Amino acid sequence: MTSKSRNPKAYCYEHPRPALTVDIVLFHRSGSRIDVLLIKRANEPFKGLWAFPGGFVDQDESLEAAVARELEEETGLKGIRLEQIGAFGDPGRDPRGHTVSIVFGGVVDRSIQVRAADDAADAAWHSATRPPKLAFDHKKILKLALKRLADSAKQ
Amino acid sequence: MTSKSRNPKAYCYEHPRPALTVDIVLFHRSGSRIDVLLIKRANEPFKGLWAFPGGFVDQDESLEAAVARELEEETGLKGIRLEQIGAFGDPGRDPRGHTVSIVFGGVVDRSIQVRAADDAADAAWHSATRPPKLAFDHKKILKLALKRLADSAKQ
Repeated sequence: MTSKSRNPKAYCYEHPRPALTVDIVLFHRSGSRIDVLLIKRANEPFKGLWAFPGGFVDQDESLEAAVARELEEETGLKGIRLEQIGAFGDPGRDPRGHTVSIVFGGVVDRSIQVRAADDAADAAWHSATRPPKLAFDHKKILKLALKRLADSAKQ
Repeated sequence: MTSKSRNPKAYCYEHPRPALTVDIVLFHRSGSRIDVLLIKRANEPFKGLWAFPGGFVDQDESLEAAVARELEEETGLKGIRLEQIGAFGDPGRDPRGHTVSIVFGGVVDRSIQVRAADDAADAAWHSATRPPKLAFDHKKILKLALKRLADSAKQ
């Protein structure tokens, strides 16, 4: 964060670059109930709203490393098996500007205790079918992730 | 390209950003033979090697629009139905620096005539199982795309 105050726009490129994030949709299934892990955003945009754990991919960081880092930073969870669900890149999905998010998903077999930290003011399991109001396009992402979960259960 | 000569590094951000590209793996299946559409790279890196059609996502351009634009620019093809295969972001996969590519795939029912243009010196259908030497990590991407194609044929 030091570089922010010293050098507000220090990273320059020849062509414009969309910002790149990862988000994690983690489900817990118990009988017919499906829960999803959400964090309450500590910062703008959408401060105070619930969202998936996630954040910006660092320079020279693999997508898998970014996902593991963000999940641990915001919820304390480590060693969770995750797979790519898809990339979401519609302009307008993030009020900060053009941001493409690569979404990873997973299922855990119990409602693991989580603790909020870093950019998360809170972290908790919520009903995935009746979630609270979500930040960004996370409602759309949740819908797709639930469809994938249902499809994989059929196989 | 004008902005390039005038302003070599005109796009500045507070945090570093990986570059973002899209690539298109287009198959044509005829009996047991599977062909894949490749372009010969007109520019460095990997100039002269074969690669998937693709390129950088423009500012405020959706991923689907970027894919359609790049496919048309480099091969002349329009209106092809494509779906996301996955994102590839390992540092080191592009010698220009950290570049994440979101790969889209599709299958056409005939070996449509293609014409090279823009960043492509040539465009042609090649055996997908015995392809020429490929640029970047496109060999790895092709392997995954072929697996997806085989999996979808089973369903």
